[in-house]
Amino acid sequence: MSYSIAEIAQTLSIAYEGDGDLRITSVAEPADAAADQLAIAMKPEFAKGLAQGSARAAMMWQGADWQGFGLKAVLLAPRPRYAMSGLSAMLDPGPEYPTGIHPSAVISPEATLGENVSVGAFAVIEAGAEIGDNSLIGPQCYIGTQARIGQGALLHAGVRVCHRVTIGDRLIAHGGACIGADGFSFVTPEPSGVEKARASLGEEGTDSAQSWARIHSLGGVSIGDDLEIGANSCIDRGTVRDTRIGNGCKLDNLVQVGHNVVIGNDCLLCSQVGVAGSSVIGNNVVLGGQSGVSDNISIGDRAILGGASVVLSNVPAGRVMLGYPAVKMDTHVESYKGLRRLPRLFRDVAELKKAVSKLTGTH
Amino acid sequence: MSYSIAEIAQTLSIAYEGDGDLRITSVAEPADAAADQLAIAMKPEFAKGLAQGSARAAMMWQGADWQGFGLKAVLLAPRPRYAMSGLSAMLDPGPEYPTGIHPSAVISPEATLGENVSVGAFAVIEAGAEIGDNSLIGPQCYIGTQARIGQGALLHAGVRVCHRVTIGDRLIAHGGACIGADGFSFVTPEPSGVEKARASLGEEGTDSAQSWARIHSLGGVSIGDDLEIGANSCIDRGTVRDTRIGNGCKLDNLVQVGHNVVIGNDCLLCSQVGVAGSSVIGNNVVLGGQSGVSDNISIGDRAILGGASVVLSNVPAGRVMLGYPAVKMDTHVESYKGLRRLPRLFRDVAELKKAVSKLTGTH
Amino acid sequence: MSYSIAEIAQTLSIAYEGDGDLRITSVAEPADAAADQLAIAMKPEFAKGLAQGSARAAMMWQGADWQGFGLKAVLLAPRPRYAMSGLSAMLDPGPEYPTGIHPSAVISPEATLGENVSVGAFAVIEAGAEIGDNSLIGPQCYIGTQARIGQGALLHAGVRVCHRVTIGDRLIAHGGACIGADGFSFVTPEPSGVEKARASLGEEGTDSAQSWARIHSLGGVSIGDDLEIGANSCIDRGTVRDTRIGNGCKLDNLVQVGHNVVIGNDCLLCSQVGVAGSSVIGNNVVLGGQSGVSDNISIGDRAILGGASVVLSNVPAGRVMLGYPAVKMDTHVESYKGLRRLPRLFRDVAELKKAVSKLTGTH
Repeated sequence: MSYSIAEIAQTLSIAYEGDGDLRITSVAEPADAAADQLAIAMKPEFAKGLAQGSARAAMMWQGADWQGFGLKAVLLAPRPRYAMSGLSAMLDPGPEYPTGIHPSAVISPEATLGENVSVGAFAVIEAGAEIGDNSLIGPQCYIGTQARIGQGALLHAGVRVCHRVTIGDRLIAHGGACIGADGFSFVTPEPSGVEKARASLGEEGTDSAQSWARIHSLGGVSIGDDLEIGANSCIDRGTVRDTRIGNGCKLDNLVQVGHNVVIGNDCLLCSQVGVAGSSVIGNNVVLGGQSGVSDNISIGDRAILGGASVVLSNVPAGRVMLGYPAVKMDTHVESYKGLRRLPRLFRDVAELKKAVSKLTGTH
Repeated sequence: MSYSIAEIAQTLSIAYEGDGDLRITSVAEPADAAADQLAIAMKPEFAKGLAQGSARAAMMWQGADWQGFGLKAVLLAPRPRYAMSGLSAMLDPGPEYPTGIHPSAVISPEATLGENVSVGAFAVIEAGAEIGDNSLIGPQCYIGTQARIGQGALLHAGVRVCHRVTIGDRLIAHGGACIGADGFSFVTPEPSGVEKARASLGEEGTDSAQSWARIHSLGGVSIGDDLEIGANSCIDRGTVRDTRIGNGCKLDNLVQVGHNVVIGNDCLLCSQVGVAGSSVIGNNVVLGGQSGVSDNISIGDRAILGGASVVLSNVPAGRVMLGYPAVKMDTHVESYKGLRRLPRLFRDVAELKKAVSKLTGTH
Repeated sequence: MSYSIAEIAQTLSIAYEGDGDLRITSVAEPADAAADQLAIAMKPEFAKGLAQGSARAAMMWQGADWQGFGLKAVLLAPRPRYAMSGLSAMLDPGPEYPTGIHPSAVISPEATLGENVSVGAFAVIEAGAEIGDNSLIGPQCYIGTQARIGQGALLHAGVRVCHRVTIGDRLIAHGGACIGADGFSFVTPEPSGVEKARASLGEEGTDSAQSWARIHSLGGVSIGDDLEIGANSCIDRGTVRDTRIGNGCKLDNLVQVGHNVVIGNDCLLCSQVGVAGSSVIGNNVVLGGQSGVSDNISIGDRAILGGASVVLSNVPAGRVMLGYPAVKMDTHVESYKGLRRLPRLFRDVAELKKAVSKLTGTH
């Protein structure tokens, strides 16, 4: 697989300069690039490496002095990261799973596979499951009874889609992702310590020892189109209705989405995010790595949580939040500046007390 | 599968009113409910949806004006969430794994399976393993050498129970759960930076570069009856003795229980909780989502950690904790109120300094 | 398997006293030890249990009065935890996976296996993969196309090594670990709310709804020698070059290492740690449980992050950090002491204001 600089520029709808016929086979960082590789030098500090490598072509920022770096050709992207999306899609050879139905796969005769579906070794597809056209179910995947997966899915090795889960088109899911395990919902015969602590804001805990009764998850999981779900991430099924995620959402690795949660379209959930049961998240929301959303919370459209923020109450649309508990980012920054200056404040107040007590003649 | 309202009321030991012969097949939210579904309308705000749906029967709070909502029958639960437990158990069709021993399963001739055990496709059961009566080992599960699993277990697809792990009756485990991986225990030939930093409370770090020697986990994991373990959760084996979890504990997804940890009975560990090595947790403890327990800590019975709290020192019985580091919930709330009001405090002190310096004539 | 006390002392290069011919078969805690077990009693508080157990030999601290505890022999370690490393390696029977190539394994004829390689049931090894001598690929493992694994690897059941991942010698990886899933890298056509919020420190969020374009991960993962990777941990592949981890690093369970991250040698990443994309971590760094490192951060050699710390800016070499956001540990301790004393400070300032306003005659 190789592409000319002119072909790439055309596919990405960006400009190039120099020798459009120069062909590249893959990408590399500037210092590592061989003669047939395209150096990725999006910023001046990355371009320094070009001298150590052997690249003859690079993708650079607009206005870059590419000839001064000894290159023969350059791709010039007005928004380099966005151009990188198209370029990387062109050049990705992918995992190269074998295609076709592997003879070891256990596929129920009551499952329905579309046109051009591949199923890897040791995959299991249960009765009533439906797989859309052009989907690839990787080795060792599990698709439960009556699960429905749309067209063009790519399930990497070891993905689990549980019974009665519904998934739209073009899902990408990574190894160990578990879509549709039971929700975590338990109840004690009498009010538990957690219920009392919440009602009393922590003044009262529990005084009795009770065992937990299980609330079964009668709902499933419904997921829209163009989802990506990271390795070992978990999306739990709902109690009465489905847990729901809209179109275009991207979940990183080790993310937890609890039962009954509703997530809109085009949200990003970075690694290790946790969204507790029954919370509702709007569209275009970004949850930074390790951030958490408490249960029964509402997060408005376009809200952004900084990394490791923990939201304990509703967040309005468009709000940028940080901290634990999360507050508006600028409020958080001001509070923490104050926290760092606290020791000095204590000293100031101690001195003031002395001065005032002298003035008042007390003490 | 369908049930009459009277049957449900009898099974759950709750009251009903109206037409006890009305039959329902499943549950739904009020607005989505079809005529043969039971609407779940536990609170007045949920009951509003009844007008949009077609439910003829609902589960409601005591005293609800069910006839005013046009219903033919109602189940009245004194504690609706608890009634939901029994109701959901009645109506859950479950994952419907095929029963029997799948011909592809690799079961050691030296393993012992009880009566009525099912084993799914591509499951592996090693030598010396014992599986109790009426257990279902799902597809792609792994049961290591000499592992013992009690009666009535339900292991969903892809659960891993490692060698010499001991599990009581009625375990439910979800995909990707890993019970009995090695503990994370390493030591340097000379005292490491971590040891020095702990001893000196952070004043002294490490100055030398050493490699880590592995401490093998010679213990296993011992788990009681009625455990539930969520998807992709991990319970590590102990160093000298077993890591231990009592009866009735429920672990959500992506939970980590470190080596040598001891957990009592009837604890809840919500999603993404981490309990570090050798900590001891009592009975009926609730650890909120993303909360953490440092190593070698003791947590008393009935303690509750709010979401994302991090416990760095022992917690007495019954205490409700919040924050990082976690403190009593009301202390935490007061501190954080103060933090938010800090900027004003700095301004007040600055003004006081001015006023006092005027009074004293200094500066 | 049994060892004499003298053999153990010689292997661990430590001293023993008493009957060197006494043989032990395994270890136990003092109170649980049978006559053929070595009691592990590293500290005086653990030695008390010897009276309840039946141990005739123990590993103890130097200077311990072992005869006073009724023992026949003792191993005396100058650094007991380090001696435990060697002792536990001697006594660990391990998981006892069957050796040889299981007939059910699907191994591409284009894969290359070294001498004495074992492959478990339902493992998949794709075309172009290379496995070094004396490695054990456990049951249900997946090794992608062109992945290379060095000598002496131990991959427990259910490990996934994705395509074009390169791993050194003596890897130990636990169930569900996923090495080489795609990085989490998405971009919007126009600057997104996250980009704006970062540029403006949170004053400006996003105002437009855009969908996310995927940046494919063209790089892989390169890992050195002597790595250990915990259960369900994830290491993502790089965008242009490989994500890299040096020699001797140990990763606990549920750890996330993002795309393009570079980690040096001999680092410890405790459970549930997250390292976001493109961050660079030096040698001998210790990241405590649940700690997080923001993207594009640099962490110097020998730095230590306390449990649950979150690093939002660069950390110099040797620094011990704590908190969220993480600061020097002693600064953090001082700040938090201040936070706890804040309510009293507010009262002091209120009183001062009263006193000063009396003095100045205002109000």
